[in-house]
Order: sequence, then C-alpha cells, then structure tokens
Amino acid sequence: MNLTAMSLKYINGQLSILDQTLLPFQETWVDVKGPDEMFNVIKTLKVRGAPLIGVSAALCLASYSKEEKHSELFINKALYLRESRPTAVNLMVAIDRLIAVAKKNYSIENIEKEAFQIFKEDEDLCESISRHGADLIKDDETIITHCNTGGLATVGSGTALGVIAKAHSQGKKLHIYVDETRPLLQGGRLTTWELDHLNIPYNLICDNMAGFVMKENKVDKVIVGADRIALNGDFANKIGTYSLAVLCKYHGVDFYVAAPYTTIDFDCPTGKDIPVEQRQPFELKGLRGHFGQVQWAKREGVSSYNPAFDVTPAELVTGWILDKGVFDSSTIDQIKNMKEV
Amino acid sequence: MNLTAMSLKYINGQLSILDQTLLPFQETWVDVKGPDEMFNVIKTLKVRGAPLIGVSAALCLASYSKEEKHSELFINKALYLRESRPTAVNLMVAIDRLIAVAKKNYSIENIEKEAFQIFKEDEDLCESISRHGADLIKDDETIITHCNTGGLATVGSGTALGVIAKAHSQGKKLHIYVDETRPLLQGGRLTTWELDHLNIPYNLICDNMAGFVMKENKVDKVIVGADRIALNGDFANKIGTYSLAVLCKYHGVDFYVAAPYTTIDFDCPTGKDIPVEQRQPFELKGLRGHFGQVQWAKREGVSSYNPAFDVTPAELVTGWILDKGVFDSSTIDQIKNMKEV
Repeated sequence: MNLTAMSLKYINGQLSILDQTLLPFQETWVDVKGPDEMFNVIKTLKVRGAPLIGVSAALCLASYSKEEKHSELFINKALYLRESRPTAVNLMVAIDRLIAVAKKNYSIENIEKEAFQIFKEDEDLCESISRHGADLIKDDETIITHCNTGGLATVGSGTALGVIAKAHSQGKKLHIYVDETRPLLQGGRLTTWELDHLNIPYNLICDNMAGFVMKENKVDKVIVGADRIALNGDFANKIGTYSLAVLCKYHGVDFYVAAPYTTIDFDCPTGKDIPVEQRQPFELKGLRGHFGQVQWAKREGVSSYNPAFDVTPAELVTGWILDKGVFDSSTIDQIKNMKEV
Repeated sequence: MNLTAMSLKYINGQLSILDQTLLPFQETWVDVKGPDEMFNVIKTLKVRGAPLIGVSAALCLASYSKEEKHSELFINKALYLRESRPTAVNLMVAIDRLIAVAKKNYSIENIEKEAFQIFKEDEDLCESISRHGADLIKDDETIITHCNTGGLATVGSGTALGVIAKAHSQGKKLHIYVDETRPLLQGGRLTTWELDHLNIPYNLICDNMAGFVMKENKVDKVIVGADRIALNGDFANKIGTYSLAVLCKYHGVDFYVAAPYTTIDFDCPTGKDIPVEQRQPFELKGLRGHFGQVQWAKREGVSSYNPAFDVTPAELVTGWILDKGVFDSSTIDQIKNMKEV
C-alpha cells in the first residue's frame, strides 16, 4: 500500500519527506534511507510538528523492517530513533507501539500494518476535527489564524488549518489573515506556503496587526491549534495566542481552538499547572534559518523574555473543536472522559 | 554656543550626527559638511525621527550660513534641503523659519539664533512632557513601551521614553518591557540601545508577548508616543499600539500616550479622519538593514497587509501626557485651544 500526505510519501516501501527547512523557496523531497538518516532528519528539523514526526518515524521503521530480519536488532534501532527528540510524546508513543508489535510477533507485515495504523489514526483525527470545525464556518467568512497547524505539522489536513481547508473544499469563500508568528515565523514561512497550495486567499500580517484588522475589517473567527489542553479547557499554544483571545473578547469575535483528544493532558486540572518553557534569547535579537541569518540587537546586554507558548483561559474560548465534536463552556467538562483506556 | 544631544552635536559651528543605521552595533558620528551632505544623510535614514530631522537640518543650515554670504544662495540651498523628506512636517516648518529670517535680516548670528531656538523648543517640549509624565510614575513600576520614542527621535529626552528616562533619573526603580515593534524593529534595535545607555533594566519581547506579560507579571502602565492626535483624543501611532491599548483595557493596566502639542492635528476631528498609510509588502516577507538581509516568504504570491500605524480611540486612553500637562477623558477637549497663533 502506498501513502501520501502533504509533506510525506510512502511509495513501494520507500519513505520520502518534504524538507521543511527549505520551504517556502524550495520543495525538495528527501528519500529517507533508514533509521540513522531519519534520526538526522528529525534532529535538523527537516520534519517538524509532533504528529508528523511520530508517523514519519513509524513509517521509516516499517521500511527498515524489510531489511532487518532480527527483532532484537530492529528494536535496538527503534530505541535509538526514539531518542532523536526527547520531548516529542507522539514520537515515543508511535515507536513504543512498533516495539510492542516487534516483541510479540515480528514480521514485515505486522510492523507495516501498525505503522499504517498510526498514519491512519492521525489522518482520521485531522479529518474529524476538520469536519466538525467546518460545520461552524459559513460562506464568505474572514478568519485569523496563528502559527502553522496544517499538513506540514500532521499527516492529515491539520487542526486549525485543517478546519479552514475543509471549509474551503466545501466551496465556502474564505479570506484568511495569517499572523507571521514571531519569533520563529511559522505563519510567514509555512502557513502562507500551505494556503498558496490550497489556493485559499490570505493576507500575511505582523502579529501586532491582528487587533487593528479586527477593528477595521470584518473578522468572523479566530481559529488556533493547541499544544496542551487542561481538563478545565484552559490550553497552551504558540506564544501570541493569548493576546489574540483577549482581542477577540474585546471585539466580539468568536475564538476557537482545534486539536485532537491526544492533546488533552489528563494530569493537568487547569492552565496554572502547565509549565511555560522559555526559549533562547537569540530568537528575539535576530533570525536564522535556511533563508539566512541576521542579528539586530546586541547579543550581550539585551535581556529578553521569550516564552515558547502562552496559556489561554477557558473563559476566552468560544468553542473547542476536537475530533469527538465541538464543545463549549457548558460541555467542556466532558473531556475528562476522553482518556483512552 | 555648543549643543549636544544623544544623537546630535553642534560644536564650534560643526554639526555631527550619530548614524542610526549602524545602531546598535556601531556608534559612528558623521560630521555633516553642508546641506548637500545633509540631504543624503536624511535620505539614507542616518537621521530619523520627525523632530530630530527638523532640528538637524536647521543646525546644518546654521553652519552653512558661515560660508555663504548671499541670502539668495542660502535660501536656494535651504529650499533644496527642504525636499529631502517630502512628508516630514517638522523639516519644512524648521526650514521655513530659517528662510523667513534670511529674507528679513540675513546674518550668521540671526540664522544660528533661530536654529538654536528650534533646538531649544524641541528640548523644552520633551522636558515638559517627561516631567508631567514622570509625576505619574511611582517607585518600583513595570512599564511596557512600543517603538522608539526617545533621544534617537528627538533632540531632547523623547516622549514616551523621555517620561521613562525622567522617572528613572528621579531615582525611581523601573522595569521596562520593550516591544520589538515589527516590521521595522525600532524597539529591538533602537529602544534597547537607549535603555542600555540610560542604564534602565528591561526585557525585549516580541509584540505578541505583551498580553501574556500583562497576565503573568505585574505591569503598571503602558506608555507610547503618537504620530497624530485628533481633536477628540483619538490618535495614530506605530502599528501595534491599538492592540496594546485593548490588552490594557482587558487587564486593567493604565494606558498613556505622550506627545508634544505639535502632534495635534487641528483639522482632524476624530481618528476616523486619519488616513492609514500602507507600507511595502516586503517588510512582512523579510528584513533588511545595515545588519544584513533575509527573506522568509515568497515575494510573489504572498499577499500582505502592512499598515504603518493604527488608530487608537480615546476611550482606551487613561491619560494624554502633553507638554502642557496630563489630560484625561474629562479634560482632553481642551486640546482644541492649544493651536499656536
């Protein structure tokens, strides 16, 4: 069986990934030859997005099972690849599932079947989220989104951007304002690329323009993704999300968060329990990427505050678009029952 | 008489300016040899900030009067220099004042006296604004500011940043959060440099972090400058100001605007009458400056929306810090009487 997604292909047992570090200028596909190369592909951020990393690693191991007859050696390689991104939960979950299969009944067919299942689950979650979210979108709406939450972060259509893509595919006329999403510019670099591919009209804006866009233009909705959802509906997402939610409250614009149930942290009662990671100060003093490098503030002396994400309280959320359906403040307490058993 | 400011010196009749395009990495002073060189200095943005441009041009012409005996030739050069920045009102006003003197009674002494007066007026306006504003600031306050509004934009201490500098000089302990101010990064590049010089502690933040800073930290005030103030107190300022004002409203943080009376547009009843200039799309797709150049979004295809400033309605303003004093919503209608006659 062959699999294709926006940023991943698995054709005749060969995995290829779209090198995201080269976007938007070059669309270069990399044939991943085995787990050693995959380790490097993950380390160098050619693949990004927690779900996409997990599925890519699983398919790479499926491909590898064709040349490794011994389950112990397969498991060793899998354990090695599992370490390529220590904080990526999806990566660990995906690889642990393949290891469990390898321990129980190692064969090319069984490993590939499990990897395909992992691919399909991510695709299905995206499809469910997109479908539920698209039901909320009417014809001729204007939507602001933040960061990148589409086919470059998942193997499916994505979360927030998946909702937008689905509504567009249903023939609804949309206009999107894309926050560039400082400091790492996922909006400016990746979401614009995806919207070009999807043929959805948009304007790229600086993050500090979102309020004025709401004041001067018709904005119907803001839809964002989530990194982690607490049991009371508070959620963490890319820095800038909280400001957007406050701006929505002030302007009477609906504010939605779109995510799979796997984003719910069942050990996390409220947003106060979510720790906020601080990133490198350099990101505020300059920019570096495949597109080059610049620095505009002195490296020494300039103190920066660089939280990777922020926490938005449930009271600012109009609706949670999950794979199980759309929840609002009266029903969000049901998410505590979504834990897989 | 000799004059010195943060970014301008006039010593023994020789004007020198601090090349702002090289900040923050190099502090290079340029001796401006005459109006032809000054024209180039203004064109290439080595001098920026509307008040500073006007004063620099006036002092350059004062220096030039020492070598030009004929008032007609002096006036011709002045008219030439007046065209170096067609939209800079302060530049035109300053040069028109020197031309009026040259027509009436041309002499080195009279020209220099008028130029010094122009310098002193800007300094005095900044001093008055700073003094009134500093009275509002208590010990141990945390303040967010936006863009650059200090000694690099005026010959005095500045407007919003002048208030902060004055409060600091009074011995009040302050902590500043500096919005980097996309797209042109005046906060990241220039305000950080000024605060380093003033020895005032600060953190540089991305514009999209201001809301989360208000949520997670004690923030007492936001103080910003203004490009234009309408008669009802609505005002235009660097893009991002409006979002800050809304975030202040939501978090109960005081929001102040600091500006001289020359910023009031007496032909402008409300903010609706202020046209919003759109800048080049490139600024959202990349960055260029003396520090280098990068581009992360495709030049073609990517549509951007790039307003240079936004308009903040009076209802979001706690106080207007003007050279004539601090006004609030109950007294702001008095500004209609500030027109110079």
